[in-house]
Amino acid sequence: MLIVGELINASRKLIAGFIETKDGVAIEAIARNQRDAGAHYIDVNAGIFVDHEAQTLQWLVKTVQSAMDVPCSIDSSDPKAIEAAISVHKGSAMINSISLQKTRFEKLIPVVAGTDLKVVALLMSDEGMPQTAAQRLRIADKLINKLVSAKVPAENIYVDPLAQPIATNTIYGKEFLEAVAGVHREFKDVHTICGLSNISFGLPERKLLNQTFMVMALTSGLDAVIVNPLDKRMMAAISAAETLIGRDDFCLRYLSDFRNGKFEFYKDN
Amino acid sequence: MLIVGELINASRKLIAGFIETKDGVAIEAIARNQRDAGAHYIDVNAGIFVDHEAQTLQWLVKTVQSAMDVPCSIDSSDPKAIEAAISVHKGSAMINSISLQKTRFEKLIPVVAGTDLKVVALLMSDEGMPQTAAQRLRIADKLINKLVSAKVPAENIYVDPLAQPIATNTIYGKEFLEAVAGVHREFKDVHTICGLSNISFGLPERKLLNQTFMVMALTSGLDAVIVNPLDKRMMAAISAAETLIGRDDFCLRYLSDFRNGKFEFYKDN
Repeated sequence: MLIVGELINASRKLIAGFIETKDGVAIEAIARNQRDAGAHYIDVNAGIFVDHEAQTLQWLVKTVQSAMDVPCSIDSSDPKAIEAAISVHKGSAMINSISLQKTRFEKLIPVVAGTDLKVVALLMSDEGMPQTAAQRLRIADKLINKLVSAKVPAENIYVDPLAQPIATNTIYGKEFLEAVAGVHREFKDVHTICGLSNISFGLPERKLLNQTFMVMALTSGLDAVIVNPLDKRMMAAISAAETLIGRDDFCLRYLSDFRNGKFEFYKDN
Repeated sequence: MLIVGELINASRKLIAGFIETKDGVAIEAIARNQRDAGAHYIDVNAGIFVDHEAQTLQWLVKTVQSAMDVPCSIDSSDPKAIEAAISVHKGSAMINSISLQKTRFEKLIPVVAGTDLKVVALLMSDEGMPQTAAQRLRIADKLINKLVSAKVPAENIYVDPLAQPIATNTIYGKEFLEAVAGVHREFKDVHTICGLSNISFGLPERKLLNQTFMVMALTSGLDAVIVNPLDKRMMAAISAAETLIGRDDFCLRYLSDFRNGKFEFYKDN
């Protein structure tokens, strides 16, 4: 499972404060903690700083990469801000995100075409949020074909089927999972990714729901996730599920996680 | 999810002791606790009392049913003991279990033929334990057809694909899950059931693995489980997963579980 650490997001007050005071030490520490907890990419989002998103993203990328060798996930809906952030990024970044929405697609495609960037592809079009698995797969088909035509290799595409709150409609979980399974089945080499927390919006014990849904999505074929890697229950569930689905030869990673105390929070009851 | 409470099993020392001292109050309390925690069937197993298994099972069934209106799952490999237990059982019992093993099948089929008993059908033949999903589905095909020919309605058949330890072979989890999905897809109305704990045999933090595997199996279509209903984490995972897969209209059961304190053990960390 490819883990994208979600914590450096300016919509969180703590992070916005660190950005405003240019507290590089704090940002670096949060990046390091996520990396040490298993994140392969560090997501950086400065969307609330509308007037200077590009410069802020550049500062975040440089700060995160100043002390350690870890790639970033550049999280923005503004192609110019994404381009600016890439220009200072060392190594191959992840772009979060493109979609089938015309303006967004057309402005971002020149940035990613022919590169080795990883590209998160949201299954959203100008017709709005899809609801069923079938609607998602139709968008996936168009979007993946367009990206591959623009010389984005299939293995660099991370499709996000967009989780929606089951409190709004109880079919949303199943339709999402069927979309994950469908992409997995129909598009060779293409990955699936998602943030999970929308699924539980409006319900109590959201962490229980998010963690459970993570295991369900992984069972359906999800192979990347945007998540808080400091959430020990979540990471333990991922470790256990990967072992149980056969992605952990001889259970070696599970046993190593156990020895490293990653399940210590887990008490019998 | 149909829950079969597994605690009244004489292979547990506590239960063996209660049986030896004919402590009906204790047995009744354990049955009641399981029923109150959500068990639809109370499993009764007296397999260690080889010389008087039939009488012991009869006593267990009568004791469990003396104080409350709950059906039992008669858990034995001895057709005579099963028959004896059924003769004192009120309402429609579950039989745990039949299999494709010739002696077991032939002796048990007259007991279940043409009845409204629920029948757990282990995917095991005289060729031994199956390893792959394909092997399991071949046995399922034969066993289900034979049961239906003997007038056991498809909706009363609970196929158990038999979980095996992933510590032995890392494919065992995936093959099991594919078998569950296969039965679900290929045999209309037939249910799937299993005990989970074998999957984690030989590994640390077995409860974490069992609970995670429960969610994975439910995602693959499992609709019944033999489990300890007093395990709050397990029951919370089942509640969350059923809601997330769309088996809980308007999330009403999840919300009711929350209000009834069933997730109280769950602390943020």
